[in-house]
Amino acid sequence: MPTQRPKSTSTAHASRRSESSRRAILTAAFDLVQEVGYSGLSIEGIASRAGVGKQTIYRWWPSKGAVLFDAFLMLSEGDDGDPALPDTGDLQADLALVLRATVDELNDPRYDVPMRALTLEIARDPALAATYAERLGEPMSALKKERLRSAQRAGELREDLDLDVVVDLVWSPLFSRWLQRSGPLTHAYADGVVATALDGLRPRLR
Amino acid sequence: MPTQRPKSTSTAHASRRSESSRRAILTAAFDLVQEVGYSGLSIEGIASRAGVGKQTIYRWWPSKGAVLFDAFLMLSEGDDGDPALPDTGDLQADLALVLRATVDELNDPRYDVPMRALTLEIARDPALAATYAERLGEPMSALKKERLRSAQRAGELREDLDLDVVVDLVWSPLFSRWLQRSGPLTHAYADGVVATALDGLRPRLR
Repeated sequence: MPTQRPKSTSTAHASRRSESSRRAILTAAFDLVQEVGYSGLSIEGIASRAGVGKQTIYRWWPSKGAVLFDAFLMLSEGDDGDPALPDTGDLQADLALVLRATVDELNDPRYDVPMRALTLEIARDPALAATYAERLGEPMSALKKERLRSAQRAGELREDLDLDVVVDLVWSPLFSRWLQRSGPLTHAYADGVVATALDGLRPRLR
Repeated sequence: MPTQRPKSTSTAHASRRSESSRRAILTAAFDLVQEVGYSGLSIEGIASRAGVGKQTIYRWWPSKGAVLFDAFLMLSEGDDGDPALPDTGDLQADLALVLRATVDELNDPRYDVPMRALTLEIARDPALAATYAERLGEPMSALKKERLRSAQRAGELREDLDLDVVVDLVWSPLFSRWLQRSGPLTHAYADGVVATALDGLRPRLR
């Protein structure tokens, strides 16, 4: 179930104002959670920072978690227009590039704080987890699997793989290490995960 | 830094009473969090359920998170005395056994609720994360690596692996899928993770 978007308005002018309020609210939520943490985040605080009334926020979002979630969607939509994973024909290099970029993001406090807050809310709230899965998790997973299928067509990957397992194998070590702070998140670690997943743990004859 | 244990007392009788209060408190915390969730858990509630005064709890633990953490330690200590991973000489079968048991535990509401609460606290609180790493995370990781080293000696595993990466590769998919509720946690999934990690993603000649 998608979280609410601004209701359509009857004039282009009101619609523009609506969209600008929406962006101000989402930006305020994203900035504020870095300053005060998730527990300190409130609809009042977001409204005050965004220069809108509380009712404007409540009209569009049911909770602060939903606001923060849409702030993430806005961010990821704004990235560069092409959400596909790189496909140079070298799967190991492409995955290492993607995982290194994820490492950099997770190590950046501007992302760590709001992402941790959102991740905790998702872990706590099954309804938010379902929304997240539908709007961000599954589309991301589909992009990853599309890149893996391309590697299968190129003969770089086994044909008989369960791609859901593969996605978890490649991406969850970073997530787990980041969330639990169980070890350093470095480019070398990202490279190690990719190489180890590709080559497997058993001795190879080659 | 370990969380506090009961202070040693001058007579065996007082020490037994101390230990019995400690167990009552930890059991109460574990039971209560399943009923009321982590946000509903309070030192007052634990004290009342355990039949002790609040001050008794505050003397031994700094927070409800620390109480819950020790409740987990008590549980894992009580398991069966031998914490080593199974070593039948067949690594794939042994890992599948361990991961299937983890799947069963994660699917059991008696464990899911308190483990989720503890995981969220660890993710939020770097001090609790450090305590967890020292007292549970690293000892568990050492046991896993010991089993992997045995497989290396038996020629079942490559010699040149970074075992920290291997531990994350094998164990984090379950953790991630459980915490984010991103897919069903089944024995087939556990088997798939083990087989895919062992064999790797690339086509093999054999």
